[in-house]
Formats: sequence, structure tokens, C-alpha cells
Amino acid sequence: MAEFTPSLLVVSAHAGDFVWRAGGAIAKAAMRGERATVVCLSYGERGESASKWLAGNSLEEIKAIRRDEATAAAAALGAEIEFLDMGDYPLVETPEAMTRLVDVFRRVQPTVVLTHTLADPYNGDHPAAARMALQARVLAQAIGVPNADGSVPTKDEIIGAPPVFFFEPHQPEQCDFRPNLLLDITDAFERKRAAMECLPAQTHMWEYYTQLAIRRGVQLKRNAGPNLGLPHDTMGEAYVRYYPQVTEELS
Amino acid sequence: MAEFTPSLLVVSAHAGDFVWRAGGAIAKAAMRGERATVVCLSYGERGESASKWLAGNSLEEIKAIRRDEATAAAAALGAEIEFLDMGDYPLVETPEAMTRLVDVFRRVQPTVVLTHTLADPYNGDHPAAARMALQARVLAQAIGVPNADGSVPTKDEIIGAPPVFFFEPHQPEQCDFRPNLLLDITDAFERKRAAMECLPAQTHMWEYYTQLAIRRGVQLKRNAGPNLGLPHDTMGEAYVRYYPQVTEELS
Amino acid sequence: MAEFTPSLLVVSAHAGDFVWRAGGAIAKAAMRGERATVVCLSYGERGESASKWLAGNSLEEIKAIRRDEATAAAAALGAEIEFLDMGDYPLVETPEAMTRLVDVFRRVQPTVVLTHTLADPYNGDHPAAARMALQARVLAQAIGVPNADGSVPTKDEIIGAPPVFFFEPHQPEQCDFRPNLLLDITDAFERKRAAMECLPAQTHMWEYYTQLAIRRGVQLKRNAGPNLGLPHDTMGEAYVRYYPQVTEELS
Amino acid sequence: MAEFTPSLLVVSAHAGDFVWRAGGAIAKAAMRGERATVVCLSYGERGESASKWLAGNSLEEIKAIRRDEATAAAAALGAEIEFLDMGDYPLVETPEAMTRLVDVFRRVQPTVVLTHTLADPYNGDHPAAARMALQARVLAQAIGVPNADGSVPTKDEIIGAPPVFFFEPHQPEQCDFRPNLLLDITDAFERKRAAMECLPAQTHMWEYYTQLAIRRGVQLKRNAGPNLGLPHDTMGEAYVRYYPQVTEELS
Amino acid sequence: MAEFTPSLLVVSAHAGDFVWRAGGAIAKAAMRGERATVVCLSYGERGESASKWLAGNSLEEIKAIRRDEATAAAAALGAEIEFLDMGDYPLVETPEAMTRLVDVFRRVQPTVVLTHTLADPYNGDHPAAARMALQARVLAQAIGVPNADGSVPTKDEIIGAPPVFFFEPHQPEQCDFRPNLLLDITDAFERKRAAMECLPAQTHMWEYYTQLAIRRGVQLKRNAGPNLGLPHDTMGEAYVRYYPQVTEELS
Amino acid sequence: MAEFTPSLLVVSAHAGDFVWRAGGAIAKAAMRGERATVVCLSYGERGESASKWLAGNSLEEIKAIRRDEATAAAAALGAEIEFLDMGDYPLVETPEAMTRLVDVFRRVQPTVVLTHTLADPYNGDHPAAARMALQARVLAQAIGVPNADGSVPTKDEIIGAPPVFFFEPHQPEQCDFRPNLLLDITDAFERKRAAMECLPAQTHMWEYYTQLAIRRGVQLKRNAGPNLGLPHDTMGEAYVRYYPQVTEELS
Repeated sequence: MAEFTPSLLVVSAHAGDFVWRAGGAIAKAAMRGERATVVCLSYGERGESASKWLAGNSLEEIKAIRRDEATAAAAALGAEIEFLDMGDYPLVETPEAMTRLVDVFRRVQPTVVLTHTLADPYNGDHPAAARMALQARVLAQAIGVPNADGSVPTKDEIIGAPPVFFFEPHQPEQCDFRPNLLLDITDAFERKRAAMECLPAQTHMWEYYTQLAIRRGVQLKRNAGPNLGLPHDTMGEAYVRYYPQVTEELS
Repeated sequence: MAEFTPSLLVVSAHAGDFVWRAGGAIAKAAMRGERATVVCLSYGERGESASKWLAGNSLEEIKAIRRDEATAAAAALGAEIEFLDMGDYPLVETPEAMTRLVDVFRRVQPTVVLTHTLADPYNGDHPAAARMALQARVLAQAIGVPNADGSVPTKDEIIGAPPVFFFEPHQPEQCDFRPNLLLDITDAFERKRAAMECLPAQTHMWEYYTQLAIRRGVQLKRNAGPNLGLPHDTMGEAYVRYYPQVTEELS
Repeated sequence: MAEFTPSLLVVSAHAGDFVWRAGGAIAKAAMRGERATVVCLSYGERGESASKWLAGNSLEEIKAIRRDEATAAAAALGAEIEFLDMGDYPLVETPEAMTRLVDVFRRVQPTVVLTHTLADPYNGDHPAAARMALQARVLAQAIGVPNADGSVPTKDEIIGAPPVFFFEPHQPEQCDFRPNLLLDITDAFERKRAAMECLPAQTHMWEYYTQLAIRRGVQLKRNAGPNLGLPHDTMGEAYVRYYPQVTEELS
Repeated sequence: MAEFTPSLLVVSAHAGDFVWRAGGAIAKAAMRGERATVVCLSYGERGESASKWLAGNSLEEIKAIRRDEATAAAAALGAEIEFLDMGDYPLVETPEAMTRLVDVFRRVQPTVVLTHTLADPYNGDHPAAARMALQARVLAQAIGVPNADGSVPTKDEIIGAPPVFFFEPHQPEQCDFRPNLLLDITDAFERKRAAMECLPAQTHMWEYYTQLAIRRGVQLKRNAGPNLGLPHDTMGEAYVRYYPQVTEELS
Repeated sequence: MAEFTPSLLVVSAHAGDFVWRAGGAIAKAAMRGERATVVCLSYGERGESASKWLAGNSLEEIKAIRRDEATAAAAALGAEIEFLDMGDYPLVETPEAMTRLVDVFRRVQPTVVLTHTLADPYNGDHPAAARMALQARVLAQAIGVPNADGSVPTKDEIIGAPPVFFFEPHQPEQCDFRPNLLLDITDAFERKRAAMECLPAQTHMWEYYTQLAIRRGVQLKRNAGPNLGLPHDTMGEAYVRYYPQVTEELS
Repeated sequence: MAEFTPSLLVVSAHAGDFVWRAGGAIAKAAMRGERATVVCLSYGERGESASKWLAGNSLEEIKAIRRDEATAAAAALGAEIEFLDMGDYPLVETPEAMTRLVDVFRRVQPTVVLTHTLADPYNGDHPAAARMALQARVLAQAIGVPNADGSVPTKDEIIGAPPVFFFEPHQPEQCDFRPNLLLDITDAFERKRAAMECLPAQTHMWEYYTQLAIRRGVQLKRNAGPNLGLPHDTMGEAYVRYYPQVTEELS
């Protein structure tokens, strides 16, 4: 295991998910000078590209467009990005896919992992991505699970036990999403907005997710109480912490 | 509202609960030089003093014994303690009791609150104490709720929105206690043990809760992962955070 | 505490509940020669006696009618019965009511307790009765809780930790009633039917609860499997066990 | 029981709740020419009037202000309103309060009931109001429960079994609010906005709840699917139906 | 997308399920002159044909018998039926199976979908069928998911967002089946009974499911209240609505 | 189906699980002279053998070591053991694996089945094993599901409906493990300890699981109450019963 260096890994089912759902957390990590990596399991080429199909694009054209957009959005946030091109609608959990994702975890050595919720009645790819991320995290910890090239991993190649956070789905209540963590993204929101604007096919979402950040900011202030002196225009993102928090101090 | 000064408030149904369930957290706060206050709603004179009744003590004698023990235990932890003597078995949620508890919240100005779980099929006083603590916390925030002397509170007298943590009940799974926070109490355990030993009627509990601290420590290390380099003999306490965590950084 | 003698206690909100919901269990206990006691917290005089109000009866007349019917039904099952006449719609949880119910527990020394579910969106008296039964059971265990006459109880007067079972409400799924125990009442069903027929205002219920016994019997056979060789006409009652089962053998 | 005439009853803990949470549903009923009645259990004088206390108003002045505002908002929606002045922070569930609320149900003869959720960790008055509304609804159905003047109710005075809907709390996920019904309030939103503007102390809420209506509208369109041809600017309110829906047709 | 024409699609794991569990809803749709289609993923040839195996029939014979019975039952209800013959015990969720089921959704253009619950500890095929139905519904909506012949679907070929209802399993409480909708099938029950009688190997089920319809009818009347004036012999079927209801009016 | 002969079947994901989690139940069955069979789906060679990989052992060496250890532990408990060698990390649910497991069920004719919980965020193999055990149990009941050699099973070859119990995972609360059964293993603990000592790579676990047995014993005594007269040093194991208990008597 490498010594402790902050490293954020975001496992995104489709090319755009990480922007709307976790753009603030990614930008904040980058602004602190930390490594942030996004891995897109698919481009969302079949399930989240209706307008491009209607415009008559081919599958490969759509994948290229989405790749370019997501690359630009990641750059706007300050993150690295890679694409596993596993296909979507449905995203299928094969052994090969798992091997590739374990390889990502071992290369990135995440100290924090973000992914989708385990339930989503509107999109089966999202829970599939979450299950894959959780399984890859556990497999990547085990020295008995070989590397992608078949070799036995060294102690530096296996990973620790990074905390996992689920980011907010489109219809949170229907996805059993009950936030137990509200992240203050006020200072990072400008970057998040810039990243959103890299996705031109979904202009109506720009305002929608700006309003969501305001809404979560209002809740953040209410939960923080007046003691923290948060400004009126606090922006937030909501998360569910999956494993127990380990801490030296209650706060 | 006063400016931010750490202040831990523990709302305990009976005189001994705070020792077994939250002694580590209290000691840690005290060891950091912070104020820690325990408020015992009752002495546990009827429901948790069987051996003293069997020995033929009177109600007042039992209350005095329990008061002395709890006072010694609080001192061992480094905490202040007060007793509201509301009676137990059952602990009843009256308007007068609520007024007194609101007064405690306003005097103590807690920045962290610890109390029982909201469910406990073995002891109805525990959920009653939790409900009272939660209600008092909300009432104490409102400038429209008068002080105990009938006066309108000043802005410094009302409280903020301190986080609330439920400490561990005796049979956690039966009380819907699913810890989402594991507190490292290794350096505070010696104080906790000393406090436990202030309760001589329950010597078999000393070892029982020592073993529980070891058990929660093992889980703490597993959830932390090897990155944190926790020592082999890590001791822990488990908690449930009730309101969403507000934070600047995912970790 | 007395030595172990089987004693079944049924805490029923209204005068008729015990018949429809637990008649089979009561009859089985009686047929084994065990003591069975029903305590009716109210007569159901306001909430479950519509036809009698429409017929112009007075409150006292209705209480007398319901008392007579319930007494006859208990006799048909082989059980003792007592009436606490606490009033219904709503059934209110006062300290006095609790003292009286603790007294029942101490006199009856139950080894098994049956009562309502903790949720019922159609009738608030049912959960109130369940809460009272659960609280009385805990208070009756404590030597520090005085008897009704103010005396300190002896070791023989306090009770043990009898298991508690919730019997089936009218709309089980709406009451979070997920049975984890199916009781074979085939040999006791004749008595249950006889007890139901002591309640003449609700003739349509006789068939309804006969059919329910068949339905639970079908499920019982399916869960038992063919090994037990249960007969085709097995009748059943469904229960939820509230505390963990303690056992010497998995079966 | 009276013959079927639509009648909407909204049970609101404080004077303003009905506007933010159910203004659309109320306005829609009124626009269909139906009777809509709001009953405010308290004025929210202690818990939701901080700015008025800070401005040095007396309790009676605050109650008068809140009464006037709520009266104006109800008028803007097209609803009747009455105030039970039970006090808030805490709202206490007394027998007298229940009798008064049963009286409201019998006078209003509701065919639909709206109220708060049964859980709200931020405000204990909201669940208290919900519990009171649910209990009053059941008591008002029973011919054995006397009228406020002590008389036995006639068949026309008792009520039926109106469906109950919980309206949306401020932090839905923390209140176990999982909407199972989305109401299209597009045509009624202008009235809702006008009603919100009758509450001048909370101008920041006007926009907040306008944005929430947009958000729920987006979800409404997604759940409706394209078949219904809903317009781009659909506005919505979210509800939880408490009892099973009874219907002649699945749709 | 086609214009709105009512079309009911029932996804049934085995050949008989649709009769017992949704026969009333199917018959009602047919009686309104609407299209109703049943798709049986398997014949239930291995898991639900014990008597035929005991009688020495071959696999192909059993499939033929079950096909004939289900065809007759569908005719009795007034529904079309098709058989995908995917095999049972276990029913396996392959990509090919999914392609075929997406094709059914696109051909049928359902406006309402019925299927099994997502949990069933007694029969793994039932949740498998539910998962397949839910996934097929989402895939069939996406223009990027090709037709079975590999072509890009037209706007008329993709489907909308039809509501989904889970029908009642054999042991509802064990399957987390908490009905939130009760359908009045009184006028359709004669057809349902006729369809049940097309399944001669399960004569004991005819009465069992007749009694269940009576039971759900009693609950339906209780939830409807007296206002609707439902007749004494109301028959019902219970369902769980999976997605939020979208409506113009609370009722 | 064979006549009723007690037969315990334990389905264990890895070679060591059955010792820590169910050793007491296995030993008790053996001490009663009953057949007890452990089936290990894998050796835990990749996921639970870190020290052996670090020591430079090959995959086959590790499998052999774990096989020997588990064989010795089973012998110490008095159980038979077989190894299906399906591979771990991940354990994959293939049709072939299922056929082999069905074969085990039909050979062993279990009257009680023990396996893992259905949730475990720390180890995906555990829920996979539980799903496989549950599915195999249902398939083995069906006469239409062929034997491993393709033959139609006889009536003696299919199995009944044995109860299933989930044994305790390492972090019970995180695995939704809420025990509803506490098994007294006092007289079997010596055997369990001997079996644990057959697993020398995990010496720190010996004490950990001894302490857990003490802890569950304390809870067992509390739930049993004083009536049963259990000794001070009662040891216990906790289980979750999955299907409803079928019984002739409430106790």
C-alpha cells in the first residue's frame, strides 16, 4: 500500500453523471491540489443520448461526442478521466469488466470513492455501476486477487478501505436516498457550473442543478446551525456515506 | 448565541447510562480541555437498582447512593454532572420536565449532544429520554419559547443546531442501532475504565464493556483500513449520527 | 419469582379482540390444562359498538352487553377474563392505568404474553394497548416499582421476561404485520368458532375469520413442508414474535 | 353521513404551513368550486415567528399578525380557515384539543384530508399535528364518540373514511417522505404564489417554493411519460398517500 | 410513440400466475373494450407442475398442457397471450431474453404494466420476472436501444412511461407486499372464476382465491368508507403501485 | 421424500466461515447424535488467505492448506464436510454451480439449513452464498428440476421445506442482522473452541469469538428471563430465522 495521499475516485455509469451529481466534490478536491479521477463505465450512448439518435448520428459518432463533452467537463473540474466503454442500457457486470475496474482501483489508489445509489427505479445502469464499484473496491483490497496481467499484486498495489459515498440521483426519494452528509460546495460551484456548460445537449439541466445546489445549501445551513456563520448563498451537494465514519472526535 | 466554544452535553435517562455508553467520548472531550456536562434525568432508582432494593434500602437511600456513584464517575471522566430527579420506571415526559431540560440546554450551550436511541424494547425510559432530549434541543433554539423564569430569551441564550449522536444500547440490534460512526477512544479508555469502576454494584459490567470497546475497536480498524496505521489495541465506541453531517470535505 | 408454571396473558384493547385474533392460542393453552387469562382494557363501548348505539342503547347498557359477550367467549375458550374499564376511543395511557396493568402482570405471572401490533392506522387503541402491555411487562419485572398498594414487591411478586407475541390485526400489511410464527390451531378451532359465536352482533365475522384460519393454515403447511405430514384441513393463526427466541435447538 | 360532496380539510400545525406545502392542492379544489377548509392548530407564535420576537412584539401581537397573514393566504387560495389556538412549541395532544378537532371533522365532513408527515426531526409539532389529525379522523367516524356538546352524533354527523395525504416537509428525505403521488398544480400555481406573498416575513421562501414546484413538476413529467403531453412548465406538489387507494381502474 | 390507447401488459413468470393474481384487472380491462396482453416468460413446466411430473409426463407434454390451459384462461378473461418459453426453475435473465421482452413492450405499447413483486422467498422466478419486466420497460423507452432486428426504433416504436403495479404473491407479508391500491373487481369476478376453472390441476386454489377476493373486498370497503356505497359482496384485488401516481386531483 | 431424520446442512462461502459463525450449532447437533454436513463453496483462497499469499504460497498450496484446516475443524465439531471449489473473490453464481448445490441438498436431505446473511457490505461472497443456498433449497424441492445426472428425481430424492437460519456476520449491524433467535451453546462451546483452534492463521479470532459467545450468552439470559435458571457462564450464538416458525405452542 502506498502512503496516504488523497485521491478521489468517481465511478460514473454514463459520461455525464459525474458532472451533475458530484461536480462540486470533484472540484473541491482539485482546488485543494488533490488528485481526482473519473472513470466512466460507458458513454451513456444508448440510454442518455436521445437527441443525438433523433438527429441521426451513428453509435460511434454518439460515443465520440459524449467522450469529448465529458473530457471537457472533467477538465473544467480539474479531474482526470478515463472511459471503460463497457456499453450501456444495459450496463452488464461481466468478469472482464470487473477485472478492468479492479485495475483502475489499484492504479488510482483511492482514499475516497464516489458512485451511484444501489437503488434507482428509473435507470438500472446506476445501481449496476454502484454494485461494480463496491465489488471492485473489495476485490482490489485482496492480495489473492490477481492483477489484470495475472500477476500477484504487491503490498503497494492493493488498496486500503476508502470510504464510499453515494451521490444524489435524479429522484432522490424514489432511490432510497436519505442524505447523511451535506457538502459545502460554495467555493467550487463556479467550476461545477462551467463543467455543466460543457454538456450542451442538456441546457435545461444547468439551471435545474443550480437550483438543487441552492436547495441543498439551504438545508446545509439549517443543519449546521447559526454557529458556523455560513453565508446566505451557501451551495451544497448531498451524499450518503455507506460505511461507518471513523473519527477521533464527534462533531 | 454565544460564539463557538466546544461543549458536550450528554442526556442520560438513569445515573449510570452515560458511563457504559459514552464514557469514552466524554473523557476525550475533557482531555481536549473542552467542557463536558452530563444531565441525568433520573437516578435509575426504581428500574436499575435491583440489588439495592433487595438489600432493603429505602428509595431516598438508593437515590443518594446512585447520585454519589454517578458523581464520582463523572469526575473520573472529567465532566460536570447534574441530576433532574424526574423519577424513573417510568420516566414521564411532562411540560415541567421539558422546561427544566430546555433550561439545561440554554445554560450549557451544547455544540454536541449525546443521548439514547429512539427504540429500546427492554427499557422504555431510554427512548423517553431520547425524545425529551430531541424536543428540548428544538425548543431551546426558539426565541419564542420562554426561559424557565418566564422571560423572553436573548440571542445569546438560545442555542444553535448541535449535532446529535445516539450512544450504544445494551442489545444494539434489537434497538435498530446501526452505527454510522465509530469513535476511537484508545487514549481515553483508561479514564472510562476508572469511571466504570465507580459503579461497584455492576462489577460484571466492567469486563463486559471493556470487551465491547475491543470489539468496536476491531471494527473501527477494519473500516478505517490499513492506511491510518491504527495500533493493534484500538478501542472504540459506536454511535448513530441523527442529523446529516455538514462538512467541507469528504473523508 | 414463582417457579415455572405456564400462564398465558392476553392484553386486549376492546372486549372482542382476543376472540378473533388469538382465540386459537388461548384455546390450545386451556386444552393443555394451562392457565389462560384475558384482560380487556376497555369494553370497546364507543369505537366498536356502532350497532348498539344505533339501536339506542345507553353507554352503560352497551358496556354490560359487551361484558357479557366477552365473558361467554372467554368461557368457551377456557380462559379467565377481567375488565379494567379504562374507556376507549381513545384508550388513554395514564399512570393509574399503568399501575393497574402492572398489578395484573404480577398477579397472573405470565410466561407468555399476547397483545396487539404497535402500528394500526385504522385504530389507535390497538397500538396504545400494545404500548401499555409492553411497558407494564417491563415495570412488573422491577423490584423497585411498587405494588398497587404501595408496598415493595417480594421476589415472588415480580415477573420474569415472558416472550411477547403480537396477534393479527384486521389489515395486516397496513399494520407492518409480517408474521414470523404460524401456530397450528386445528384441534382448537372448534372452540374458537364457539367463542366467535358468542359475539352475535358480528355474524359476518364468523365466516371471515374461519376463512382466515384456513388461509393461515395453508401457509403453515407450505412453511412446514411435507415432512410434518400436516392434514389437508390444517387451521392456523399468525403471530409476530417481538423478542428474540431463546432455544436449545434450531428447528 | 351526508351524501358525497367534495370537501377538502387541511390540518396545519402552524399558521403558515398549509401555504408552502399544500397551497396548490387547496387552490385546485377551490378552482373546481369545491369547499376547502384549513384548520390551524396553532399560530406558530413561538416556534416560527423568530423575526417578530426579535422585533419586540408581544405574544398576542404575534398571534394577531400570524392570524391576519394566514387569513389573507387562505383567501388567496379560495379556502375557509379556522384557528384552534392550541399553542405551539410544543403542540400538546390533550383530550380537549382532540374533542375540538373531532368537532371540526364532523362539521367539515371532509372527503379528502391533508396533513403533515408522521416524522420530522426538525419540528416535533408537525408529527404531533399529524397524529392528532389521524386520531380525530378515526374518532369522528365512531357514533359512540360524543359530539363536543356531549350529544350522541346522528348518522349525518359522523364522517366516512376520507383518504389522507401527507404534504411535503422542508427536508423530505429526513422525514421519511417518499412521495407516491405527484399532483399537477400548473394551473393553480398563480394562486399559490399569491398566497405565499401574503407571508411577507419569509420572502426568501417565495422563490424557494417556486423552485420546488418546478422540481416536482419535472419529476411529474418524467413519471407521467410523454404520452400525457404535459407542457414544459408543469408545476407540481408531492404527497404521500397514507391509506390504500380504492379504485375501479388501474392507471 | 403512438397516441394514447389503453393497453394492459401482464408479465407473468409462469403460465398460471396471471390468473390467480391479476385475473380481475385483466377482465376489467377487457370488459371496457381495451387491449389486454399476457406474456408468460415460461410455462412453469419444472417448478409448478409437480402433479404432471408425478403422472409421468415428459417435459414437452407438460409445456403443451400448461400452454393450453393458460391459453384457455386468457381467452376466458378476454386477453391475448404469448409465451416466450424461457425456461423456469430457474428463470434466467439473459441478454437474449431481455431483447425478446423489449420487443414485446414495443409491440404492445403498454399504458399499464402488471408483474410480480421484487421479493419472494418461496420462488426466485417471481422476482426475476419482475426485474426483467422493469428493465425491459426502461430499455424499451430508449431510442438508442435497437429493435430485435437490430434497427434503430422510430419514435412510434419506443414506449412511454407506463405505471407498474405488482400483483399479490401467495404469502404477501413474506414478500414485503404492502398494498397501496385495492381494485374493485366485483363485476369482473365471474370471468376471473371462469379463468381459474381453466386450470384443473389446482382445483383447491379456486376456492382459495375466491376467498382472497372476498377478503380484499372487505378491506376495500373499509378503506373506501361508507360514502361510496359499495355493495356487501364487493370483491377485490390488491396491488402495489411502484412509481408515484401522477394526477390532477387528490382522491 | 425420506422420513424425518434430523440433518443439518451448513452452506459456507469460504472454508473457515462455518467455524466462527455456526460452530456451536453444528457441535450441538453432532452431540445429539444427528448428522451435520458442511459444504464449503470455495476455500476462501483469494479473499481470506492474505497471510498465505504474503508468505509466497501458490494458489494450489493455499487451497490445500485451507482444505486441511477446515477438515480438521469439521472433525472437531463432529461434522462431515465437502468442498465444491467454486472459486472466491468473487464467488460466481453459475448454472453449473447451482446444479452441484442442488445435488448436495438432495443427497443431504437437510431438515435445517444454515447460511450467510443476504447483505454484507464487506464481502460480496457471503450474500452470493446465501442467494445460492436459498435458490438451491427451492430448486431441490421441485420434482421437475432434474438431478445432476439428468434424471427425473424420485419422491425420495426431492427435499421438504427445511427452515433456514442466517448465522452472524462479522459486523452484524452493517449487514442488517437483527437476531430473532439466540441459541444456547454452553455445553458445545468446548468443541467450538477446539474447532477454532484448528485455524492457526487467525489466532486473534479465537478470543474475539469466545468473547462474542459470552456477549450473546448475556443477551440470551436477559431474553430468557430468570425463570429458566440459566447459569452465569451461558454462551450463545445469534441467528436470524428467515421463514416463519411453524409450531404447536407459543413459547
